[in-house]
Amino acid sequence: MSVLVVGSMAFDSIETPHGRVDRVLGGSAAYFALAASVFAPVRIVGVVGEDFPDEHLTALSRSGVDLEGLQRNAGKTFFWHGRYHEDLNVRDTLEVQLNVLLDFVPRLPAGYEDTEYVFLGNMHPAAQLEVLSQLEQPRLVACDTMDHWIHETPGELRKVLERVETVVINDSEARMLSGHDNVVRAARVILKMGPRTVLIKRGEYGVFQFSDSSSFVVPAYPLEEVLDPTGAGDSFAGAFMGCLAADGVAGDDGLRRAIVHGNVTASFTVEDFGPRRLMALDRGEVDERYRRFVELTRFHG
Amino acid sequence: MSVLVVGSMAFDSIETPHGRVDRVLGGSAAYFALAASVFAPVRIVGVVGEDFPDEHLTALSRSGVDLEGLQRNAGKTFFWHGRYHEDLNVRDTLEVQLNVLLDFVPRLPAGYEDTEYVFLGNMHPAAQLEVLSQLEQPRLVACDTMDHWIHETPGELRKVLERVETVVINDSEARMLSGHDNVVRAARVILKMGPRTVLIKRGEYGVFQFSDSSSFVVPAYPLEEVLDPTGAGDSFAGAFMGCLAADGVAGDDGLRRAIVHGNVTASFTVEDFGPRRLMALDRGEVDERYRRFVELTRFHG
Repeated sequence: MSVLVVGSMAFDSIETPHGRVDRVLGGSAAYFALAASVFAPVRIVGVVGEDFPDEHLTALSRSGVDLEGLQRNAGKTFFWHGRYHEDLNVRDTLEVQLNVLLDFVPRLPAGYEDTEYVFLGNMHPAAQLEVLSQLEQPRLVACDTMDHWIHETPGELRKVLERVETVVINDSEARMLSGHDNVVRAARVILKMGPRTVLIKRGEYGVFQFSDSSSFVVPAYPLEEVLDPTGAGDSFAGAFMGCLAADGVAGDDGLRRAIVHGNVTASFTVEDFGPRRLMALDRGEVDERYRRFVELTRFHG
Repeated sequence: MSVLVVGSMAFDSIETPHGRVDRVLGGSAAYFALAASVFAPVRIVGVVGEDFPDEHLTALSRSGVDLEGLQRNAGKTFFWHGRYHEDLNVRDTLEVQLNVLLDFVPRLPAGYEDTEYVFLGNMHPAAQLEVLSQLEQPRLVACDTMDHWIHETPGELRKVLERVETVVINDSEARMLSGHDNVVRAARVILKMGPRTVLIKRGEYGVFQFSDSSSFVVPAYPLEEVLDPTGAGDSFAGAFMGCLAADGVAGDDGLRRAIVHGNVTASFTVEDFGPRRLMALDRGEVDERYRRFVELTRFHG
């Protein structure tokens, strides 16, 4: 079963206390797609500029990502430049050039409308609604968002939340969206906005899942060295959705298995700069770390 | 099997965004003892002043705490006044009066020397060493410490660490003690200082356990309302040690079971001000929440 992601494609320049890289492949759709492709075939809908190199496209294709929905428009590719603090949970955005992303209207290629697993990456809620209007009875739609849309386009964001099955956001966004500091209370409030499942990413502290029927709390895979946290959240979402699409499992057990696979996959992403580690990742490595994670977290009930 | 705790007894005045209490029972030994007493008989060695009310002693006795080692010295009881921020992870100490704690020299009553499970609460490392010199072949000694001793008495603290089986500290202390921000690396460095097990308390994010043979990572029990975080760490340590003493289980399985019981017990402490909730806690409630925690964290390997 394929997974469709609609989101940004970017050049990222990233500085962390451990080094820097310039204009590497970035964007929510790129990280999501690379992570999801470990588990299932992936389709991207997004936009790049005339300056986007073929090598990035080749890298995505090689990972099993279908690029038919990737528009190449006149102008430059979206560019992000960020610098992480010694505390990698904190980062400053030094420069953003929206470029071709500014006028991006997502258009699903013929044959994409019936994709069953769909992820609406962080983008203008109007663009997310545009995608929703083009889908035919998807099995599971999840969305991400960010502080900017929570503050600037709350009405449109609410319409998205009313129509998605799952929302995947980080803890500070959950606080902002709900008006509550407490993660359980925040999740409960967001659940009332529409989605049936709320997934709150807590960075190095793992993930909290909340729905009416059950909750799940899981720590992150403990790493001795994190080189670059960029893309961890989108890698989580990609592996989560990819795993759901691959297993086709319904119910809490399948959901939890997918969450842990998301967790484990994201732990690879942050071990190198940009999407480098993710590009070289295979299912065997994920499975091995998954088993190690089971060992790290098991206790007798 | 009894558990011995040596640590502070205090009056605490606590302000949080949810309310305040004045001069309630506090101190590491009090929280530890109340939590441990849910699982096993507890012995306290500590000091109070002439102003310490009988009602607090009665409350401890009623919970099964042996107070023979509690000295009542001339002067006033140790007093702490703190205020938590809206973000309960941050607190300011508004006032500290060491009072009788200043000249406290721990003395084990006859018959206490052979206690098998011993916890050296946060205090001057010289006092911790004093306790160690009075013990006969304990089965498991664990210690806590704090930033003050890490900075002011590093040499004596190192001697303590060389002689204990387990160190139980929070994440900021682990960073300070090890010089590493990363929790895995911090634990690895502290392990080299002597203890065979390092337990790092991460507050609302749970616990990380590290030893040469295995590691364990577990989230905290997710709570919708935290009224007062005071004593959570000592409650964790108390329930952890109490559970080990009660089960007498060796090996990783017993260790993990004790850690989760510590986790679950601490989740009760923070649901009310001071030690109020802990005082009313019984084993049945802990067991029920333990089962709920199993349900909240289980996934298929």
